[in-house]
Amino acid sequence: MVTVKFEQISPADFFYRNRDIAGFSSPARSIYMSIRELVENSLDACEVGRILPEISIELSLLGDGDERGSEIYRLVVKDNGIGVAGDQVPKAFGTVLYGSKYGFKQSRGTFGVGGTMALLYGQITTNRPFTIVTSTGTDELYKYVMMIDIVNNIPRIIDKSIQDNKKRWRGTVIDFTLEADYGMSRPKIVEYLKMTALINPHASISFVDPKGRFYFFQRVTDKVPEPPIEAKPHPHGVDAETVTRIAAETREKTVFKMLLKEFQRVGPKTAEDLLSKGGIDPATKPDDLSHDQIATLVNVMKNYQDFRAPETGSLSPVGKDFLEAGVKTLLLPEFTNIVQRPPSSYSGIPFIVEVAIAYGGAIPVSEDIHLYRFANKIPLLYDERSDVSWKVVSEKIDWGAYKVPKNAPLAVITSLCSPKIPYKTVGKEAVADRPEIERELVLAVRECARALRNYLGKLERREAIKKRLNVYARYLPKIAKFSSELSDSNVPDIKPLLKRIGVTEDMLQEVMKQEMAEAEEQYGISQE
Amino acid sequence: MVTVKFEQISPADFFYRNRDIAGFSSPARSIYMSIRELVENSLDACEVGRILPEISIELSLLGDGDERGSEIYRLVVKDNGIGVAGDQVPKAFGTVLYGSKYGFKQSRGTFGVGGTMALLYGQITTNRPFTIVTSTGTDELYKYVMMIDIVNNIPRIIDKSIQDNKKRWRGTVIDFTLEADYGMSRPKIVEYLKMTALINPHASISFVDPKGRFYFFQRVTDKVPEPPIEAKPHPHGVDAETVTRIAAETREKTVFKMLLKEFQRVGPKTAEDLLSKGGIDPATKPDDLSHDQIATLVNVMKNYQDFRAPETGSLSPVGKDFLEAGVKTLLLPEFTNIVQRPPSSYSGIPFIVEVAIAYGGAIPVSEDIHLYRFANKIPLLYDERSDVSWKVVSEKIDWGAYKVPKNAPLAVITSLCSPKIPYKTVGKEAVADRPEIERELVLAVRECARALRNYLGKLERREAIKKRLNVYARYLPKIAKFSSELSDSNVPDIKPLLKRIGVTEDMLQEVMKQEMAEAEEQYGISQE
Repeated sequence: MVTVKFEQISPADFFYRNRDIAGFSSPARSIYMSIRELVENSLDACEVGRILPEISIELSLLGDGDERGSEIYRLVVKDNGIGVAGDQVPKAFGTVLYGSKYGFKQSRGTFGVGGTMALLYGQITTNRPFTIVTSTGTDELYKYVMMIDIVNNIPRIIDKSIQDNKKRWRGTVIDFTLEADYGMSRPKIVEYLKMTALINPHASISFVDPKGRFYFFQRVTDKVPEPPIEAKPHPHGVDAETVTRIAAETREKTVFKMLLKEFQRVGPKTAEDLLSKGGIDPATKPDDLSHDQIATLVNVMKNYQDFRAPETGSLSPVGKDFLEAGVKTLLLPEFTNIVQRPPSSYSGIPFIVEVAIAYGGAIPVSEDIHLYRFANKIPLLYDERSDVSWKVVSEKIDWGAYKVPKNAPLAVITSLCSPKIPYKTVGKEAVADRPEIERELVLAVRECARALRNYLGKLERREAIKKRLNVYARYLPKIAKFSSELSDSNVPDIKPLLKRIGVTEDMLQEVMKQEMAEAEEQYGISQE
Repeated sequence: MVTVKFEQISPADFFYRNRDIAGFSSPARSIYMSIRELVENSLDACEVGRILPEISIELSLLGDGDERGSEIYRLVVKDNGIGVAGDQVPKAFGTVLYGSKYGFKQSRGTFGVGGTMALLYGQITTNRPFTIVTSTGTDELYKYVMMIDIVNNIPRIIDKSIQDNKKRWRGTVIDFTLEADYGMSRPKIVEYLKMTALINPHASISFVDPKGRFYFFQRVTDKVPEPPIEAKPHPHGVDAETVTRIAAETREKTVFKMLLKEFQRVGPKTAEDLLSKGGIDPATKPDDLSHDQIATLVNVMKNYQDFRAPETGSLSPVGKDFLEAGVKTLLLPEFTNIVQRPPSSYSGIPFIVEVAIAYGGAIPVSEDIHLYRFANKIPLLYDERSDVSWKVVSEKIDWGAYKVPKNAPLAVITSLCSPKIPYKTVGKEAVADRPEIERELVLAVRECARALRNYLGKLERREAIKKRLNVYARYLPKIAKFSSELSDSNVPDIKPLLKRIGVTEDMLQEVMKQEMAEAEEQYGISQE
């Protein structure tokens, strides 16, 4: 008989063994991921405190490497966010799956993985401790030198000091070493920062790279976005696990009141309805709900048709104006159309889809559609083809039906915001094809595409008209001349006539140039 | 001052909140994932016990659903593997990140996530308990009815019974309910089982679907593959974390002996060399190694050039013959070439890359290359474009240089085996582009492609020769006839001449048909 031994591993150990799932798969990708995770944490730490972000990133080469291939780099990321309370620093940075309290709130980071994963990767590849300096703006500044005890998923403090913070500086500095291939990853890093700045115009981001190149993305607005609000779950699509937790944690004394207070979009009438459909006494204490009653309640909520759409207060979409400005800056298109869909939800989690279509201008003509993806105001640059947006634009839309030629200067920009983005990877690069999200994307892209079809239709008609007028411009003068010669009369001034039917001076110039070029070709006359 | 609260979540809670990263993103994908994870666990449970696998899968629709859209299904997967010891059942199936002991050993599953994740998904979506029946072949059979306490990541046992197992049946039955969209996922599931059977010819797999359709993949060989062996780590590319753990756990009394016993490919001379380069006294107790000494040792090992390649004993590649048989069965190609690369390693983990190229036959002509991916003998069907194999065949190989036309009947089959496949997702669909693996794939594909170029070159030359011979076949008889008529002599028998220069009877027939067709076209003669 063969037996196997079993063991349990810690979350830190799991990510240590599976760092590829967090995006840390190569020295090139890992430096990109590290910068991303720390910048996103910094933006979140500012947003929650309504602070205009000032983020500085410094990457320098240690030793005498030549920036080619894998080398040991030092990365320092500094922000002016709300900081971390001194006693929380060790666990916040030295424990995987430990993070600022999870809730239905839109934020950029993945709970308790991203930042710590960068530090874990640095530790694995360089075996050096990392340094955290932070203050919440009190008169104390904390400095920790730490490593992560991976087997036990706990921080190991190597050095700790509390310093005076007379100027009451507030923010966080993270300073660590990691193995990286910056040469390979530079284009992605710079693109990432550029796109991040574009979609976060209130942020000021600077980056000094190992060669001393200085990239500065200055804030273009002083308007701080509304911080995302924690929302109650929407009853449509919550699962039994969520309801069980709510029933255990609520302060309400009856299931009726629990429905009213702990869920959004549930009024007294709806609550009564739900409970009567489920055969549950409204006076039941939440604690006393049986497993089966919870299962029934979840099922009733799933099939209930009369809920209003989820609240949008907790969502902070990019906004039509802003998306348009961004698209115009980036792509200088001839045509743009933006659609913001009404809020929808998947599994009780609200989300908003925004889509922009841009055509012509600086967009290169290509068989592939240029896709730009954003999720909770961060750009997604890798793994495009596994993203639901790619699925939608490449499989779900028949572009020919919208008069888009096979090779076209077409760009689609998608933005998803939600308290919980269903990423397919911990590395946050591709959004899963949850059917509800896919559906909203399809509807938004179709609406944009209809506007594009109108535009392309007009263009087509304008082209047809222009072609006809060109014929007039070319032959009317000749006919006039010929007729006059035949009738031996003076050539009449046909310009007023041409003008009346729509032929402009420019068109005549164009026609003249064209005729000269043709003559040159035909008779070999060169004007040089 | 804004402060945020922190909290720690359990691994089960993490996967509950992020089920998309484990591939459970939609009812269609989730049923595919559930079947996959359980079949792969079953195959592993047989392989470790050198058992010929008999796996049966039954999926049935609960209630009066119509198999369209999302419905509640019951899934039962039964195997004849080594079974799970009774006292281990609750944690093995009810705790995330708990699994059979991790080691450098090739296996299909991801440690402690896959199977449990399927059960967790079933629980979330249907809120019903799951049932496990198992025996290791003793006279006791264990039956557990359980749920997972997600917040605490512990099993909650609802019912437990021990039954007589007089026939000493051995294996595991997993029986649970889940929300699924079978209609949408059927093609992928059937393809998955077909490819799995193809690459595991010693397994017998049956599947009864909700409509009662019966799919049976019978074993075609009784040869049980060698079970993978647990290997020691290869010193090139191990990180400090691994060395720290080894130093803490080894029974050896000196660092010199530790190097000899705990690593592969380290003999006395190499061990001496490494320690002297690192300035470490060979008599140092492993426990006494300082943090800096370990860092130094890791660095010395990383830069040491004289290691032999990693041992391959722990690897169980598909094998050239077998890969060729599989490819021929599947694609009926005109041309096949198989390359098995010598073992290589990344981060101290050995791996072997095998690549097959197939051309023509049943492979459809397409602009895209048909890519079939396997990892540790399981097919990967989703997220092809994020896989390192896709990157290699689409970006790293200039197919034109190998005489492959833009639209070609070309298929590339890649197989990777390793004690640790660097998947990008917990859902095990795409392999990360670790530079060492990418390099081996490029070398293997190039080698295959060179053989393909030879073949296509021969084909080209054969075509050229055939064309020339066709000209002879067509005009020599005419010239003979014409010359004879001119000279009024008998037409000579030119067949021996034609034969000598290589024109066959078949070619003459071909030419005759062609001439008749031309005549028909020219003069409108129809032979009907």
